[in-house]
Amino acid sequence: MKPGDPLRWTTERLASWCDPRLKRVEAALERWVGHDAPLQLGDAMRYAVLGGGKRLRPLLVFAASESVGGEPEAALRAACAVELIHAYSLVHDDLPCMDNDVLRRGKPTVHVQYGEAGALLAGDALQAFAFELLTPDDASIEPSVQAALCRLLARAAGSQGMAGGQAIDLASVGLALDEAQLRNMHRLKTGALLSGSVEMGVACGGNLSAEALASLRAYGAAVGLAFQVVDDILDVTADSQTLGKTAGKDAASDKPTYVSLLGLDNARAEARRLLDEAVSALDRSALPDTGALRALAYMVVDRDR
Amino acid sequence: MKPGDPLRWTTERLASWCDPRLKRVEAALERWVGHDAPLQLGDAMRYAVLGGGKRLRPLLVFAASESVGGEPEAALRAACAVELIHAYSLVHDDLPCMDNDVLRRGKPTVHVQYGEAGALLAGDALQAFAFELLTPDDASIEPSVQAALCRLLARAAGSQGMAGGQAIDLASVGLALDEAQLRNMHRLKTGALLSGSVEMGVACGGNLSAEALASLRAYGAAVGLAFQVVDDILDVTADSQTLGKTAGKDAASDKPTYVSLLGLDNARAEARRLLDEAVSALDRSALPDTGALRALAYMVVDRDR
Repeated sequence: MKPGDPLRWTTERLASWCDPRLKRVEAALERWVGHDAPLQLGDAMRYAVLGGGKRLRPLLVFAASESVGGEPEAALRAACAVELIHAYSLVHDDLPCMDNDVLRRGKPTVHVQYGEAGALLAGDALQAFAFELLTPDDASIEPSVQAALCRLLARAAGSQGMAGGQAIDLASVGLALDEAQLRNMHRLKTGALLSGSVEMGVACGGNLSAEALASLRAYGAAVGLAFQVVDDILDVTADSQTLGKTAGKDAASDKPTYVSLLGLDNARAEARRLLDEAVSALDRSALPDTGALRALAYMVVDRDR
Repeated sequence: MKPGDPLRWTTERLASWCDPRLKRVEAALERWVGHDAPLQLGDAMRYAVLGGGKRLRPLLVFAASESVGGEPEAALRAACAVELIHAYSLVHDDLPCMDNDVLRRGKPTVHVQYGEAGALLAGDALQAFAFELLTPDDASIEPSVQAALCRLLARAAGSQGMAGGQAIDLASVGLALDEAQLRNMHRLKTGALLSGSVEMGVACGGNLSAEALASLRAYGAAVGLAFQVVDDILDVTADSQTLGKTAGKDAASDKPTYVSLLGLDNARAEARRLLDEAVSALDRSALPDTGALRALAYMVVDRDR
């Protein structure tokens, strides 16, 4: 932590930055997701996406886009697309053949509500719809930006990103991973989509110096990993009601975590170290307008759910 | 049938057109799919995609692209991407919570081989990889073509395409659909990706007259539906070994089919009618080089597996 960071926004300033952006994302998801889908499929898609979630990934997209003067319409679509990928991954992750979880964001999980096949299809359709959102056929987003956003999202979601991390996670239950292996798993499983959010935000803007781009990527990677370290901490320190999902799950399923590997105090220190790393990366970027990115990094580490 | 169609290619001519293209697709899939994916995920992705399948969708992409003078590199990537979407849909379709099938292309299905969670993730990763293939970051494909291919593929795969059709299929077991409802289901479930293949092939080319585009779309829709009618016919007339998948499955699971609805003879007549429709659409397109598309339409209707 940097208690004396003079550039850190107050809680109020962050809230007044987040609020209108969260409203835009909610309104856009409400308007776009699941309409004209046949039968219950649209309902299941909307149930999976709407009315819950911290929307951290969309906020990262907006903050990154604004730091480079990005196109607002492209940023809104990118923000929603990355949230759709996140939502689909939760739906599939909760299925009985994966984590078999029944509670998510304080509500029954999608397969509890719509059946396993319904949840499988809703997840599949949400992934496809993410790419549809990124490729409107009006002229609202430059084709080259559309292509770049699809490229970044596909890589973040795929076998060398989120899905790859889930495969490692699946194979790691009951195994003694070392810290490097654990870090690699989380770099893919959660980190890829979080840092992908930053890169997609950047892609909404114009040309960037190689240094600034590298710095924003380093920021995204550090925030992505910090998020997971804090997730592991909250899994043992918070209760299910606060989390809106089943607490104590990792320990119960004998999954390796930062806490099981490093102990609670060292895990907390690691989260702080990653926060410093993220903030330093922003300082290095020399971009004028990284206040929101900085505030989001603090938020990720200081959250209680 | 048009026994006297003077423009119909001989079996030999079609084979000599298909062979090099099938080899290019197989080599490209072999080269691209599942490398650098962690642990068994890459193996499961390759198992799902390689060494089997008629590759009808890639052939439609090539034929459509060639009919409009499309860019070969874009066509190859589009052909592989659409096959990845098809392969992922089979992996998820075969899962116990869906069709619960154990045999596909003459081999154990992916979840039998890699477990349910492994199959779920492999399918998810294949869908993401399809969009990654369409968006190379070298200059090999114009950004506007990349964006158009992603748009068409996402629509064909999503809730108003393939996934939507599967949702209708799921909800239709044991119900008495009429022909219009059955047609709508198949228009989405199988038709969307088949006609999407044609549209993606077209997108690899330059500008097309509205008439030619509409004709190629009508061709794609007719071939897509014909494919499903013939599938329904083969489900009752062929054996599992010839099909490489479980025959008689639709009847056993009480699913509505063209055969259960129309009877075998009328279903065959419907397939012929759709073939005529496809061929007439090509004639209307006034494009010079539609021989392969025409031959593929005949192949779809005359196939025995």
